[in-house]
Amino acid sequence: MPRRYAFGRAEEATHPDSVRATMAEFFSTFIFVFAGEGSILALDKIYGADTGLHSSSLAVIALAHALALFAAVASSMNVSGGHVNPAVTLGALVGGRVSVLRAIYYWIAQLLGAVVASLLLRLTTGGMRPVGLGVTVGEGSLNALLMEIVMTFGLVYTVYATAIDPKRGSLGTISPLAIAFIFGANILVGAPFEGASMNPARAFGPALVGWRWRYHWIYWLGPFVGAAIAGLIYEFGIIQAAEAPHHTHQPLAPEDY
Amino acid sequence: MPRRYAFGRAEEATHPDSVRATMAEFFSTFIFVFAGEGSILALDKIYGADTGLHSSSLAVIALAHALALFAAVASSMNVSGGHVNPAVTLGALVGGRVSVLRAIYYWIAQLLGAVVASLLLRLTTGGMRPVGLGVTVGEGSLNALLMEIVMTFGLVYTVYATAIDPKRGSLGTISPLAIAFIFGANILVGAPFEGASMNPARAFGPALVGWRWRYHWIYWLGPFVGAAIAGLIYEFGIIQAAEAPHHTHQPLAPEDY
Amino acid sequence: MPRRYAFGRAEEATHPDSVRATMAEFFSTFIFVFAGEGSILALDKIYGADTGLHSSSLAVIALAHALALFAAVASSMNVSGGHVNPAVTLGALVGGRVSVLRAIYYWIAQLLGAVVASLLLRLTTGGMRPVGLGVTVGEGSLNALLMEIVMTFGLVYTVYATAIDPKRGSLGTISPLAIAFIFGANILVGAPFEGASMNPARAFGPALVGWRWRYHWIYWLGPFVGAAIAGLIYEFGIIQAAEAPHHTHQPLAPEDY
Amino acid sequence: MPRRYAFGRAEEATHPDSVRATMAEFFSTFIFVFAGEGSILALDKIYGADTGLHSSSLAVIALAHALALFAAVASSMNVSGGHVNPAVTLGALVGGRVSVLRAIYYWIAQLLGAVVASLLLRLTTGGMRPVGLGVTVGEGSLNALLMEIVMTFGLVYTVYATAIDPKRGSLGTISPLAIAFIFGANILVGAPFEGASMNPARAFGPALVGWRWRYHWIYWLGPFVGAAIAGLIYEFGIIQAAEAPHHTHQPLAPEDY
Repeated sequence: MPRRYAFGRAEEATHPDSVRATMAEFFSTFIFVFAGEGSILALDKIYGADTGLHSSSLAVIALAHALALFAAVASSMNVSGGHVNPAVTLGALVGGRVSVLRAIYYWIAQLLGAVVASLLLRLTTGGMRPVGLGVTVGEGSLNALLMEIVMTFGLVYTVYATAIDPKRGSLGTISPLAIAFIFGANILVGAPFEGASMNPARAFGPALVGWRWRYHWIYWLGPFVGAAIAGLIYEFGIIQAAEAPHHTHQPLAPEDY
Repeated sequence: MPRRYAFGRAEEATHPDSVRATMAEFFSTFIFVFAGEGSILALDKIYGADTGLHSSSLAVIALAHALALFAAVASSMNVSGGHVNPAVTLGALVGGRVSVLRAIYYWIAQLLGAVVASLLLRLTTGGMRPVGLGVTVGEGSLNALLMEIVMTFGLVYTVYATAIDPKRGSLGTISPLAIAFIFGANILVGAPFEGASMNPARAFGPALVGWRWRYHWIYWLGPFVGAAIAGLIYEFGIIQAAEAPHHTHQPLAPEDY
Repeated sequence: MPRRYAFGRAEEATHPDSVRATMAEFFSTFIFVFAGEGSILALDKIYGADTGLHSSSLAVIALAHALALFAAVASSMNVSGGHVNPAVTLGALVGGRVSVLRAIYYWIAQLLGAVVASLLLRLTTGGMRPVGLGVTVGEGSLNALLMEIVMTFGLVYTVYATAIDPKRGSLGTISPLAIAFIFGANILVGAPFEGASMNPARAFGPALVGWRWRYHWIYWLGPFVGAAIAGLIYEFGIIQAAEAPHHTHQPLAPEDY
Repeated sequence: MPRRYAFGRAEEATHPDSVRATMAEFFSTFIFVFAGEGSILALDKIYGADTGLHSSSLAVIALAHALALFAAVASSMNVSGGHVNPAVTLGALVGGRVSVLRAIYYWIAQLLGAVVASLLLRLTTGGMRPVGLGVTVGEGSLNALLMEIVMTFGLVYTVYATAIDPKRGSLGTISPLAIAFIFGANILVGAPFEGASMNPARAFGPALVGWRWRYHWIYWLGPFVGAAIAGLIYEFGIIQAAEAPHHTHQPLAPEDY
């Protein structure tokens, strides 16, 4: 597995760029989860907590996640790679695009950002209990798990194709938009079935603050499996397969992440 | 008809770039059809399968297609040209922008991607039968056919103007957005009349898995006719008419596709 | 008034670039009006023709116009300047950014595109009569006129600031998005009061094919006045006022339009 | 505190660039507030003034603000920095990115733009009284204040990360989109609780013209506190902390603002 990160382990932990990247993951995940979970509490404020989804509330939830994720990824893309998502970090890890140490830092920062966002939602809404994610009646747990796998595969495939692939070219500029839009599109598919997380931090913050753990394993296992499959296929099946015939393994420039 | 593709037939079939492009078409069409058809199943999950459209479900369907198509086109634009659609491939073929061999590879990849997406939708939704596309009461088949022609003309015109035209300039960066947005806008027009496919793969996957073939010919003939008209007008009426006075037929750079 | 266009009158009329630009205005306006007016017919198909607006149909109409206008402007920006609108052409004319001859060509092409789109809507919908625009009960004609003036001012101000101003810099890349988005935002304001045209071609095509002329003068006078004010203020109050202290009147590069 | 602006005080006040920037803030804030507040009046026109929010009207309000803010920021980004918001100007001020004199000019221009927009809304709607913002039943004032602080923090953090940070790189091109999208996402969270201003000018114009001052202090204090926190953290905790190890304080190029 090629190592593409620039620092040794001891140095990386205290290097200003690592600190800055970890801070960026914290703040971006905070901004994203505040808007994502917050939009669900906003709908509860309008309709009451036990009302089911209808199509315009589905659109509101998808828009809130997509718009906020775009800002969060754009804010951190050139600093930390714009993961904002433990599953994306895992996808980058299995492809050798981040070190294990950096991945651990990112995971902690992402989870902390999601928890702080959920706590502040509780304060700003006058005490509403975060709702989090769950599997709806008529949908099996394994179906939900598979849906998380498929949707996160699509998300991390998009991350690799538009933000990591050295041949992505000028389209890197719109990479945060592609990431945010596939996230929003997949919410329009998955939310009525199982909430549509694709991001363990998105699920974890509200679960902890709202203390709702039923089905929680689905929102870790599904995204991690989907992200790992996408990372392995894209890194070894597409990037390195394409590079192989040319026998050139150039060191990646910094903007290649 | 000028040949602008770089390889001979035998070589093209096994060239890593061809393989990579075909894979990109497969995965991108998979991601697009999963979200597009999936959004319809999500609405069925909320409201039941036989409920008609209303304006907010129309918005949900258009958003799901536009957002996912953007990610799909952005993910494959610099690899395969970002077709994600057999009609777009035909439009590029009649303008001499892809070879017949490559077009056939793309078509197979696109159809396979759509079928796999539809199968996974069946599994992830706990067995829901894909809905696919159909002509609504009060709309004639020929009217529907003409609507597919007109809408796909607009789509492929946009593809040529923003992604293929050598004079497109810096706006190539936002080409996937233009393609995705005209697709979404046209769904807001056509969906209440005839489903609004503009993409035979989008129609084929759910038709096969849900086994619904009524009207299916409309979603092949319409998009193919509209795409061919757009390709011929743009390539020979606009690009080459504009090039002619300068008598310069420079070979296209790779990013000119 | 500085002349910034490159050709003399006789030459301009037959120059391939002029022909190409006029064609681009025709096709882009066609694509835009088909989706814009078509979205209103789609809602009539769902709800019947005499149902008033509600908020989700308002969102559908604004989205259809904004998404399609983005594709239309992006498709023609580097060819014709991406006007797609007689009022924008007038705004460019009063600022000396297009010649009178070219403006007349554009206007004819834009109106023709809108008429052809409206005719094809009639055919593709099985004979539905285009609805066009009108002033709603409780809104006076002069209020509606002023609203068209204000909204078109905002539109043409955005065109100047992001697509014409020589100091616009790298943001020119996202100019079609700014133009499309302010158009969509203003529809969310004006549609319940007076339809929200901001574009005489948008109003003219459906008015001719649906033969509805009441209030039609508002959709010419309002946009033309608003566009002229924006063009005069931006060209002479902002661009040339800013240039004056440097005493430099460089000839504009082609991409400065 | 490093001074990064180019002029002395006396010179800055009359320099053409300062005049131009101040005009840009006026017109951009005018365009933004006209669409933002106007969308609320449009919903009142449809449903009557005392109807509560529902999810599709929430989406309309968020879309109107996000789409118009994008056009407003894109129109002024390269001229004035694209603040369009007294809180953003304060955030830039505490980080030393604008002078006090320029900030005062911007604030006056922003407030004037918002007032003129609100007056024109009254005229164009046939006399409707602007609604402005308020805290809803069940939400405490301090909760609302905290929500404004958190949401404006997210907004100004995004402004710093994508538009000011010297290391933002190529993503500066999509900065107006990130700013507009986080604004829209946060409206989807905050509007049902307390209106979601994040912009004192947005609150002030309708408050003055509609003469509704209850809760008005929240929409100044909250955004200013949130913006100041974001400016201080980003400027001194992230930008300068990252610069420090290299001991390089290069003068910023103009496009670094």
